[in-house]
Amino acid sequence: MNIAERLAALRAELAKMEVDGFWMPRTDEHGSEYLPPHAERVAWLTGFTGSAGVVLVLPDMAAVMSDGRYTVQLERELDPALFQRANSTLTPPSAWLAEHVRQGARIGYDPRLVRKPEREAMAKKLTAAGATLVALDRNPIDLIWHDRPARPAEPVHSHPKEYAGEEAAAKTERMGVALAKAGADQLLITAPESIAWLLNVRGADVPFNPLPLGFALLGTDGHVRLFTDRTKLAGLDLGNRVTVEDYEAFEPALDELGGRRLRLLVDPAYSAVGFADRFARAGGTVIDGEDPIPLARAMKNHVEVAGAYAAQRRDGAAMSHFLCWLTEEAVPAGTDEIEAATKLASLRAEDALFRGLSFDSISAHGPNAAQPHYRTSIDTNRRLETGSVYLIDSGGQYLDGTTDITRTIGLGQVPAYVRVQFTLVLQGMIALSQAVFPEGTSGAQLDTLARAPLWRQGFDFDHGTGHGVGSYLCVHEGPARIAKGQSLVKLQPGMILSNEPGQYVPGSHGIRTENLLVVQEAPTPPGGERKLLRFGTLTLVPIDRTMIVAAMLSADERAWLDAYHARVLAEVGPLVDERTLAWLQRACAPI
Amino acid sequence: MNIAERLAALRAELAKMEVDGFWMPRTDEHGSEYLPPHAERVAWLTGFTGSAGVVLVLPDMAAVMSDGRYTVQLERELDPALFQRANSTLTPPSAWLAEHVRQGARIGYDPRLVRKPEREAMAKKLTAAGATLVALDRNPIDLIWHDRPARPAEPVHSHPKEYAGEEAAAKTERMGVALAKAGADQLLITAPESIAWLLNVRGADVPFNPLPLGFALLGTDGHVRLFTDRTKLAGLDLGNRVTVEDYEAFEPALDELGGRRLRLLVDPAYSAVGFADRFARAGGTVIDGEDPIPLARAMKNHVEVAGAYAAQRRDGAAMSHFLCWLTEEAVPAGTDEIEAATKLASLRAEDALFRGLSFDSISAHGPNAAQPHYRTSIDTNRRLETGSVYLIDSGGQYLDGTTDITRTIGLGQVPAYVRVQFTLVLQGMIALSQAVFPEGTSGAQLDTLARAPLWRQGFDFDHGTGHGVGSYLCVHEGPARIAKGQSLVKLQPGMILSNEPGQYVPGSHGIRTENLLVVQEAPTPPGGERKLLRFGTLTLVPIDRTMIVAAMLSADERAWLDAYHARVLAEVGPLVDERTLAWLQRACAPI
Repeated sequence: MNIAERLAALRAELAKMEVDGFWMPRTDEHGSEYLPPHAERVAWLTGFTGSAGVVLVLPDMAAVMSDGRYTVQLERELDPALFQRANSTLTPPSAWLAEHVRQGARIGYDPRLVRKPEREAMAKKLTAAGATLVALDRNPIDLIWHDRPARPAEPVHSHPKEYAGEEAAAKTERMGVALAKAGADQLLITAPESIAWLLNVRGADVPFNPLPLGFALLGTDGHVRLFTDRTKLAGLDLGNRVTVEDYEAFEPALDELGGRRLRLLVDPAYSAVGFADRFARAGGTVIDGEDPIPLARAMKNHVEVAGAYAAQRRDGAAMSHFLCWLTEEAVPAGTDEIEAATKLASLRAEDALFRGLSFDSISAHGPNAAQPHYRTSIDTNRRLETGSVYLIDSGGQYLDGTTDITRTIGLGQVPAYVRVQFTLVLQGMIALSQAVFPEGTSGAQLDTLARAPLWRQGFDFDHGTGHGVGSYLCVHEGPARIAKGQSLVKLQPGMILSNEPGQYVPGSHGIRTENLLVVQEAPTPPGGERKLLRFGTLTLVPIDRTMIVAAMLSADERAWLDAYHARVLAEVGPLVDERTLAWLQRACAPI
Repeated sequence: MNIAERLAALRAELAKMEVDGFWMPRTDEHGSEYLPPHAERVAWLTGFTGSAGVVLVLPDMAAVMSDGRYTVQLERELDPALFQRANSTLTPPSAWLAEHVRQGARIGYDPRLVRKPEREAMAKKLTAAGATLVALDRNPIDLIWHDRPARPAEPVHSHPKEYAGEEAAAKTERMGVALAKAGADQLLITAPESIAWLLNVRGADVPFNPLPLGFALLGTDGHVRLFTDRTKLAGLDLGNRVTVEDYEAFEPALDELGGRRLRLLVDPAYSAVGFADRFARAGGTVIDGEDPIPLARAMKNHVEVAGAYAAQRRDGAAMSHFLCWLTEEAVPAGTDEIEAATKLASLRAEDALFRGLSFDSISAHGPNAAQPHYRTSIDTNRRLETGSVYLIDSGGQYLDGTTDITRTIGLGQVPAYVRVQFTLVLQGMIALSQAVFPEGTSGAQLDTLARAPLWRQGFDFDHGTGHGVGSYLCVHEGPARIAKGQSLVKLQPGMILSNEPGQYVPGSHGIRTENLLVVQEAPTPPGGERKLLRFGTLTLVPIDRTMIVAAMLSADERAWLDAYHARVLAEVGPLVDERTLAWLQRACAPI
């Protein structure tokens, strides 16, 4: 079937289901950002492969929407004869549906792919437009996708205390106590990263993230029912507080617990509403509340923080080796984006604790770098010519930590205004790195620090400044973020967050400089009254000095930069070969 | 009746109403902050006179809660034998009730005093605790308050285009169009400041705010039904698009419109839920949405902004006269807080356009200044002794604008650490004054700029940095704020906001420096890409140079301060007497 046939088959299936349309965000039953192949429903139906998106299908029109990161990719991947394209930030999917739906229409959705606040917003808008939202028992795409890949069932491994820093039994007990405090009997866990953290296991079912697909239910006594393919667990000892059941047994288990009139804690921000609905229909009481796991997972313990520092030193060595190779050999020899990304992956893979990349590397030259989430491909591959910049955003999964770093490298003579923009981005990055703030401060309160230098010159960037990062887990991890608006989660010691301001000029170039930071306690100056926090910088890779307009830096900013480079040299220098060391010494010289 | 007898009478009334408790926030049917005497139900029942608070009454216990500003006042004004006191930020009223309520209890509330989100949060918490929230037809306090003052009925005056900048007919038409766009037939208006703005009228029913009490309903055609005491409107021509009806006719009008199955736009953030409920019970459809008036009111037009500048010059002259008198005459002569506040009010009153104070002046010496919302009273009145600071937070209502300014004055030799704190507060104030930011930025994003200098030294302040200010209207005006967290309203040209960081040391002193700012367009520097905004400073009064540790200031901060003082001298100098001018020249000298 080609895309047009798939869309026609879906419309036929919708007609059978007696609905007039279909609404489906790009996610899976586990709320994942990175999807296993069997859950790539949006890509299968439409051809759009971006990591965020929404599909809307009506009898005579359809649309795919995503945020501003994917505007170019929507244009490139979708057939305009079949799908309208829109920026979902400017045109919410509900507004598109409300505009195009006919009075009395019934719009279907898969409740396993939609969270409660999303459903409420959509239902409200559709009701106002005279239409109705209808939960479908089965996802109609699954019924027409005949060569759909099987659900992955990769082996699950133990993530020992040596790296995790806390026994699984201690975590399940701690979370059980939090659950009891919330007045619930059971916690609904649909996110594989929560299972991985809670049980100290890692899997390989999802690209780039060491996750085992599955569901779980945690009781107040710390007992866990894990629903997953048993074959994945061969040889793994999960202890006597974990009971393993089949993946397919999960929804019947909700019926059974609901029938026993239990209270289930469901975090509407993390779990699809379909599971809570099913539990409630069976007679149980759903308590909408905060899942205690994401916050506990985000606050890395001392072992995890020490692991992060160690992983970053080794990752910094691989990156330094790569940047030395790039500037001294590869660019003069005419390398391209794909070759560069491949080389970096092979350098990272030399490390004994390396387990894979933490996301698809963004290896982007010149105008390609203007897309913040560019994906290197044969069609778009560019040679790294001088006179512009090369942006590399990449990371590794190591047993002791997850890395994520962006550096923008000037190739040959770069126009002065690009170096000015680079310097403004760097000033924002430094300002956030140096922030000192009282306990209770959220990432939303700090986001402005990374933007203010750009604002003054009439620039800004249309993405968040920072995301949480897991410990040998997801490279994008909640609940804390550094972004304007809604990220009101308080920053707490041990949280690892990225610091990645940028600047993008479509058709020309893109700039981003990204370090990972860890929240730590800071001493209160004499006479001060508040308990303070600050960031420690984890990432250890030189920032391209040739791109910096030194005259724009304050004395304070120069001091930060020189101290940072001195630390990079001291910590990474001992790990690299002689040639890289010589390059590193030059790259880390005072500005 | 004394307080104990009032509480007993309330409990008896609640028993008659067949409820087991009562929940009442301090507000009135119009959502006001400043209440007319007949609506001071919390003060009458409990004795607590703070501007924010919640009363909770159960059969054998009761509580009054307020935020951190009022901790001291709660202690001072409430009888601990009758009322528990609590910080409502730390212990939400719903949590207190949930803890103390018995299973099956029915808790009454007056739906005319509670907004929908508040009711939902309370209902959720009570349900979880096994209790029920019950809307009461009548407020039980009104039934036992036998000597309750009459509703005020002060004359309403026209606020002409000369000051308002736009005819009422243009406003009602504009708002009618916005209403139609929201899909509604009628707009519910319960806030007197919305009536005042929409109809270009001002009243005198509420202390410090030139408001006429009333309700209104606006149609999509711009027709307004105004519900108020007709006697107040004698001689006033409201034009043929306004129909006047009795105050008491408002709720029956809701029944009538509901019965006609109309759609009523209700902003849950501004109107009590009781009115929407009544309309819905009568058969109408309530549309929860954004009231277009508060945003339109906040974006002052050119006439209003010009009026603000003019009013601030004259207010600056009165303040300068006051500060000259204070330092040269009054402190040496042994003045006190009350005398100082009285003198300042009399100086402001000399202006022909002055119509009253915009709030109760905070005239606070030394430890009294440590309460951010201190109220000067005979019991707490202090002589302005040297060796500490005097804080004066005050403002005027002028026909052409509303002012609000705080200055902290050093009296004699002030300890060095107090001057350090003063300088940190000033640095935050300057940083926010100098902010340049792209269109679409919210006050929440800028709040950090005013705090960062304090944070670095281990300080912070537990109040917002800035509130909206009306144009000869309320000194506290929504919807924009500069505060952490939830103030996501975008700043737009013409908005007037305060900039008032502070520092408070209980038992010792308090510091606050406050200017009013107006949002204005800023030129984008060459090469920049975003449309930018910045603040213009409206307030024109010297900042006490003797309190500044000049060595702490950056070159940039010094330049701002010197330019500000030069402007104060140039604009205010021509309006003051010779002695004040000589003082002003010294006070405005470069640092």
